[in-house]
Amino acid sequence: MHMEFTIKPIFNNSLEAILQNKINTKTKPIGALGVLETVALQIGMIQNTDQPSLNQSTILVFAGDHGIAQKREVNLYPQEVTAQMVYNFMNEGAAINVFCKQHQIALKIVDAGVNHDFENTSGIIHAKIDYGTQNYQEKPAMTTEQCTEAIQKGADLVTETFNKGCNTIGFGEMGIGNTSAASLLMSYFTKIPIAECVGSGTGLDTSAIKIKQKILSEVFQKHNPSSPLEALTTFGGFEIAMITGGILKAAELKMTVIIDGFIVTSALLVAHAMHQNVLDYCIFAHTSEEQGHQKMYEFLDKKPLINLGMRLGEGTGVAVAYPIIESAVAFLNTMASFESAGVSGND
Amino acid sequence: MHMEFTIKPIFNNSLEAILQNKINTKTKPIGALGVLETVALQIGMIQNTDQPSLNQSTILVFAGDHGIAQKREVNLYPQEVTAQMVYNFMNEGAAINVFCKQHQIALKIVDAGVNHDFENTSGIIHAKIDYGTQNYQEKPAMTTEQCTEAIQKGADLVTETFNKGCNTIGFGEMGIGNTSAASLLMSYFTKIPIAECVGSGTGLDTSAIKIKQKILSEVFQKHNPSSPLEALTTFGGFEIAMITGGILKAAELKMTVIIDGFIVTSALLVAHAMHQNVLDYCIFAHTSEEQGHQKMYEFLDKKPLINLGMRLGEGTGVAVAYPIIESAVAFLNTMASFESAGVSGND
Repeated sequence: MHMEFTIKPIFNNSLEAILQNKINTKTKPIGALGVLETVALQIGMIQNTDQPSLNQSTILVFAGDHGIAQKREVNLYPQEVTAQMVYNFMNEGAAINVFCKQHQIALKIVDAGVNHDFENTSGIIHAKIDYGTQNYQEKPAMTTEQCTEAIQKGADLVTETFNKGCNTIGFGEMGIGNTSAASLLMSYFTKIPIAECVGSGTGLDTSAIKIKQKILSEVFQKHNPSSPLEALTTFGGFEIAMITGGILKAAELKMTVIIDGFIVTSALLVAHAMHQNVLDYCIFAHTSEEQGHQKMYEFLDKKPLINLGMRLGEGTGVAVAYPIIESAVAFLNTMASFESAGVSGND
Repeated sequence: MHMEFTIKPIFNNSLEAILQNKINTKTKPIGALGVLETVALQIGMIQNTDQPSLNQSTILVFAGDHGIAQKREVNLYPQEVTAQMVYNFMNEGAAINVFCKQHQIALKIVDAGVNHDFENTSGIIHAKIDYGTQNYQEKPAMTTEQCTEAIQKGADLVTETFNKGCNTIGFGEMGIGNTSAASLLMSYFTKIPIAECVGSGTGLDTSAIKIKQKILSEVFQKHNPSSPLEALTTFGGFEIAMITGGILKAAELKMTVIIDGFIVTSALLVAHAMHQNVLDYCIFAHTSEEQGHQKMYEFLDKKPLINLGMRLGEGTGVAVAYPIIESAVAFLNTMASFESAGVSGND
């Protein structure tokens, strides 16, 4: 796997100086646009231009089921909700639909491995690996072949999107039980004890969280993966593996990758363990209320744009934060400079 | 003054229950949209409906000059910059223009009291009280008549905007030296020592901040206003007085008021001291990097939506945060419910 993606670090001193000068000479005090300035600089560097633009921005939502969720010990909602929510996405009734429509973000729904047959359904991308993963209480969630296939499919879907003109991408997910998978991956990559990586998911109460912690501690102890790929194979979901491949491919293609959510960030942890440079291409949208998400950001040494106390997944944090990223690009491209506006400087 | 505005507290138990139920039955876990849910509830309550909408949202930017700024002891930029920036607003070159255009927010520029003649200039609302305030190192910034006239003009401009169909309003300002006025008002209303209310403004260094602290401490000790109106008269700017009137009138008209920025929040402190209920109508957009702004929010016991480290004024925080408020209204109106989408609940 490791050799299939070539992700270059972003480094261009002369362009960086040009961008910083362009930002500093806009009609505002130096630094007065705060994080918008940082984001504008980063996107300019990613796109290798002082006139960046966000083209055909897209959110890919990957749905997948999890073996462990069938027992309903770690999840508040029954497994059928994954498929039901996929239909809700297709009928444009979910939160992610509302926010994507608001900001003209293209939304694509992918069946990565839902325990339901969407065979003859249009409006969904069919990429099913299997009808849900195996229960990692008993065996690894997937086979190595399934995992590499999922990574490849995620990468291919990003390439397809890129080839149609998209240069800015975000990821979302739906999968009852997938906070458990994300917690296990988090503990594996950050080395934070599994109990501290477990949260309330869709809304478990304190005693249910304790049960979830106990079950996932046992799962974590049962397995001993020896590589990022093996960790993903053991603990992952098909949606998480596809997002991992999607993030890696997007970085390889020098796309701007907008990261949000506990589950998507767990996929980034896998991608990051495979290729550290992937972070150069990532903008962090929102901190989830899911306990553990903030610790993931701390581990990656990144600060998200906003924190609205959301914990919904689906890529909603990407969509809600997106206009802020647009604002960054807009001020860089269209604000007047002190010179062009005839405004006196501070000297 | 106090009697001219009638601002009712927002209180409607049955509507609140209807709104909360509508929010809770959307296809998402309870509470999973975090602050968006709070904002949706508040706007529904303000508009007295479970189907609120943001109509012809507008930002009024008030510009005014300050007597103290002529000596250039407390400000990094010369006073001419106020007028130059007003031209920049009219030419659509400033940050606030970029962000209002991005979000289709109507932008109106008001000459509240700039030390420059815009007499025959179109594209600006002429409401000049005087060519800048007096220097409060020597005497109160304005006369009582000027102050009440400014409050009334601000209120009238809001009424005019409301009559054209606007129900959501934000305020911005431009005025070299106006962080000093805001610091003085902040200290008066919050009782936080003036030195702790003084920040870097457009970018003063540590030694310049010390000078600003010393000067404003002397100003604060020189005067002893005995009412909110007198405090505004003594320390305010014409732009701050107009914003105070604008906020009060907007609340009276049951508009949603989006608050941002150190100077606008100082106007809110005045409005709040006159009519506490005004807070029911306010949504807080952004925390400025200007030290003191966060303490103002703490005093008002309010938390803003975002913190992007901006410190530009102009109403830019309102504009950048605006799509988040739109998201709140959009999910409330258009997201599917568990019932309408046929998604299983958690029981």
